[in-house]
Amino acid sequence: MRVDVPLAKAYLLLNHGPVTLVSSRAGLRTDVMAAAWATPLDFDPPKVTVVIDRSTLTRELVEASREFALNIPPRRLADATLGVGSVSGRQSDKWSEFGLAAMPASRIGAPLVAECIAWLECRLLDEQAVEQRHDLFVAEVVAASADDRVFSGGRWHFGDDALRTLHYVAGGQFFCVGEPVVGHRHDKG
Amino acid sequence: MRVDVPLAKAYLLLNHGPVTLVSSRAGLRTDVMAAAWATPLDFDPPKVTVVIDRSTLTRELVEASREFALNIPPRRLADATLGVGSVSGRQSDKWSEFGLAAMPASRIGAPLVAECIAWLECRLLDEQAVEQRHDLFVAEVVAASADDRVFSGGRWHFGDDALRTLHYVAGGQFFCVGEPVVGHRHDKG
Repeated sequence: MRVDVPLAKAYLLLNHGPVTLVSSRAGLRTDVMAAAWATPLDFDPPKVTVVIDRSTLTRELVEASREFALNIPPRRLADATLGVGSVSGRQSDKWSEFGLAAMPASRIGAPLVAECIAWLECRLLDEQAVEQRHDLFVAEVVAASADDRVFSGGRWHFGDDALRTLHYVAGGQFFCVGEPVVGHRHDKG
Repeated sequence: MRVDVPLAKAYLLLNHGPVTLVSSRAGLRTDVMAAAWATPLDFDPPKVTVVIDRSTLTRELVEASREFALNIPPRRLADATLGVGSVSGRQSDKWSEFGLAAMPASRIGAPLVAECIAWLECRLLDEQAVEQRHDLFVAEVVAASADDRVFSGGRWHFGDDALRTLHYVAGGQFFCVGEPVVGHRHDKG
């Protein structure tokens, strides 16, 4: 079930470095593309950065609407994630081509990818210099939610392998997130 | 053994979202801190972004020298990664406190963390507006190298669990990188 994530906890959805799908809408046009280069920038209010190449339809829609969503795909969406990262939205309706369903967001006009496991709804901040020079977008997270099978009470808990996050490398290769590791603070005594 | 990584492949060291240690030097002072918010920004020449809080000694040294290294710690450095992320370099020589050895970089003055498994040597680009507003640093990678037990021929190959990358969540909790997942491109026929 999709449940709200408090804004102060939204960074946790992205902190461990999963690949994302960027969804966007401007007028009647929507697009969805893969972005590995999405990162938290601040805790509360939560902010993120994401790199969106200037050749993409997503870029055009994000620049027009000043909004987008970051959707976090589970392992079972590996093929679709590769697909929406390989094909241009100018050539194909990627939602139907890759079997992705759009669902309404809470606070923005862009649709969310229903098959994902976490969602960050974002509005651009006015950092147009780095947008133009580096394709780097700075945004505030205005709503966040997650599938409570894998994220609840402010923490990820991966059980079902098919719902683990994906971490993109290159050339169609990902790593799946693995086991938890707890760091211990030493006591100098 | 530490081997050079071609600059066009340097993004691969960071693409799957591992936590990093930021090492820096200005004059006789050096520091090392943890940063989960480090991300590729471009392929060739490779660029990265990293968030460095304004309260840290690292921030002072990076602003003075305009250089830093991103070091990627393996799982066996989980405690030290947590440690250098929890203690200020103004209070402690974190290298000795957490048992980390400094080794010389190839192209920058900042030392590298010898116990890490990959290294990106970085020089800041002139993006002082986002540095000041968002603690966000944009840098070019001027040299890269990796431990060939886990990265060679342009790919990660994790065998020994102790050498897997760490992906930070919060509160001392990481995930270890897991198994490879291959995405398949479908053929529309």
